[in-house]
Amino acid sequence: MATQGQVITCKAAVAYEPNKPLVIEDVQVAPPQAGEVRIKIFFTALCHTDAYTWSGKDPEGLFPCILGHEAAGIVESVGEGVTEVQPGDHVIPCYQAECRECKFCKSGKTNLCGKVRAATGAGVMMNDRKSRFSINGKPIYHFMGTSTFSQFTVVHDVSVAKIDPQAPLDKVSLLGCGVPTGLGAVWNTAKVEPGAIVAIFGLGTVGLAVAEGAKSAGASRIIGVDIDSKRFDVAKNFGVTEFVNPKDYDKPIQQVLVDVTDGGVDYSFECIGNVSVMRAALECCHKGWGTSVIIGVAASGQEISTRPFQLVTGRVWKGTAFGGFKSRSQVPWLVDKYMKKEIKIDEYITHNLTLGEINSAFDLMHEGGCLRCVLKMHE
Amino acid sequence: MATQGQVITCKAAVAYEPNKPLVIEDVQVAPPQAGEVRIKIFFTALCHTDAYTWSGKDPEGLFPCILGHEAAGIVESVGEGVTEVQPGDHVIPCYQAECRECKFCKSGKTNLCGKVRAATGAGVMMNDRKSRFSINGKPIYHFMGTSTFSQFTVVHDVSVAKIDPQAPLDKVSLLGCGVPTGLGAVWNTAKVEPGAIVAIFGLGTVGLAVAEGAKSAGASRIIGVDIDSKRFDVAKNFGVTEFVNPKDYDKPIQQVLVDVTDGGVDYSFECIGNVSVMRAALECCHKGWGTSVIIGVAASGQEISTRPFQLVTGRVWKGTAFGGFKSRSQVPWLVDKYMKKEIKIDEYITHNLTLGEINSAFDLMHEGGCLRCVLKMHE
Repeated sequence: MATQGQVITCKAAVAYEPNKPLVIEDVQVAPPQAGEVRIKIFFTALCHTDAYTWSGKDPEGLFPCILGHEAAGIVESVGEGVTEVQPGDHVIPCYQAECRECKFCKSGKTNLCGKVRAATGAGVMMNDRKSRFSINGKPIYHFMGTSTFSQFTVVHDVSVAKIDPQAPLDKVSLLGCGVPTGLGAVWNTAKVEPGAIVAIFGLGTVGLAVAEGAKSAGASRIIGVDIDSKRFDVAKNFGVTEFVNPKDYDKPIQQVLVDVTDGGVDYSFECIGNVSVMRAALECCHKGWGTSVIIGVAASGQEISTRPFQLVTGRVWKGTAFGGFKSRSQVPWLVDKYMKKEIKIDEYITHNLTLGEINSAFDLMHEGGCLRCVLKMHE
Repeated sequence: MATQGQVITCKAAVAYEPNKPLVIEDVQVAPPQAGEVRIKIFFTALCHTDAYTWSGKDPEGLFPCILGHEAAGIVESVGEGVTEVQPGDHVIPCYQAECRECKFCKSGKTNLCGKVRAATGAGVMMNDRKSRFSINGKPIYHFMGTSTFSQFTVVHDVSVAKIDPQAPLDKVSLLGCGVPTGLGAVWNTAKVEPGAIVAIFGLGTVGLAVAEGAKSAGASRIIGVDIDSKRFDVAKNFGVTEFVNPKDYDKPIQQVLVDVTDGGVDYSFECIGNVSVMRAALECCHKGWGTSVIIGVAASGQEISTRPFQLVTGRVWKGTAFGGFKSRSQVPWLVDKYMKKEIKIDEYITHNLTLGEINSAFDLMHEGGCLRCVLKMHE
């Protein structure tokens, strides 16, 4: 390609300060160095983690930065030593890397690759601990190793999942975060079995993906818990069989759920990021075996708590990141499942806008009717 | 037997009030009703749970009562409908019942039988919600469904494990609580695998049984954590390979353990009942897969807490009661393992006294050198 080895100037949404509107700027994107891949982003969705960091509540948040981590695109060029993808490959950038060499990847017990975490957490690339983004020479930080709110981005090769080129990029962009997180929490982390009773706290995209995962796993009852009753109609389409609104009850929601399930649920999932809800999700589990999985990201400094008796009497408290999926190995598999119509994606996309409308897209996120808004990155 | 169907008057240690010395009294023990078994207790050990309830800190504690739950004896008589044991059978009374009929027993997921829990928690027998113990007509509460600090006790038939009559009752009495709890936490709850790194917080009887279980499971490193360094010498005999005394460090003990294990332990066990230690035990676990098991019983009202990020990044928080062992089915198996010299018991018994010396036995419990004190119940 003509751009290979060159700095590319393109449009990106820059977050200069917490809570200030993003600014569409011309940014310079340096060529990929050894072990790096430069990707032309075609579509990106917005996720609550972007909003969380943007809000200034993320202690790791660095400004100015380019947010975004749920996207799809095509490789523009690759740096030295990159062998698994080449220009023209269709890819999903993955905030959770998979190097296949580190202690974590080799453990067979987790998807939390440690290879580039120190660099991505610091908003830079591992090779030289610097950013590939700049505006007139002033560096702009990376975010989650993905920074997909830019028409071009540079990521580590261990963070690139090569996918079926037939897959529609506007749809499969969602496989970069929310949908795999929910499905994987059920399939990989909780390992829900047929007949199980499941409770889901929070019926946004992740919660609905949990419902879909639980339905496909054969759960007998899938109880949706949300303070917005309007969400139940949509949730039914994803497998939710019953709806409970905590506002309708005087007693704690965990007691409500224990009562309607004759002792508690087999599995619960917290998809909000609220530590009080995390406690309720644990305590609504059945004595002896109920397992609660934390998916939501709580605000910095907040802590979960419960009586230890809850655990001594057999409940299990776990969490999950990216649903336990190994990104490079399993995101392509999820794309294939979508192409075979075995998992939903289209149904989560409630809005389509353009990069220039990104601030409106963040506003939409706070409206009950919005699940995912997908931005078209190029006119 | 001549006593069958008769009230038996025998010696028992009665706890009249929290923290007041136990009083050896002549108590009347009523005959077993339907589904009940009267047992002549030959030996009982003391466990910290007895001391906990005696201290008045147990919100379920009822006075006056007869404590004790780690013992062995011989069936004296049985009530109507009891088919699985008969007079003369050697047995271990089990505070954790196993009815094989309830939702819990049938689940295949837990040992927490629910059948008699409501009665045993209230210090009475299920049949008539009354006690079988009395002194001159005034009822004395049962404790944990076992009340083994009496020369004769009455228990539910679902709480009686029939054992090999060749087994020495003074030794196998310990299979009523502490030793199975530690072994089972490793084998059933954590499922420690060969090569794993294990940390044990608290090197009393339960902690040492955890060490023994971890050694037999093939753990590569077994790190004992205790504020009494004198315990290390004994602990080596049970499999502990390294010793860490939190008092020797300025930094939090979880950080010490993460540092000496290159990222954290694979499994940790809290065998004390201290909620701060429970947090440390979780947080010393390796990111991605480390599992912490709470065994100790915390004081009423105390809560565990941590940052949810600990779980989202792959740590698992669990607990165990009676080590996950199904009492009636598996205590006899543990007795057999002892008879085949596959598990230790003798090494835990540091003191032997008589029922009349029970207050001295409680004093011994607070001394570092005491693991288990076994009381001979009959002269």
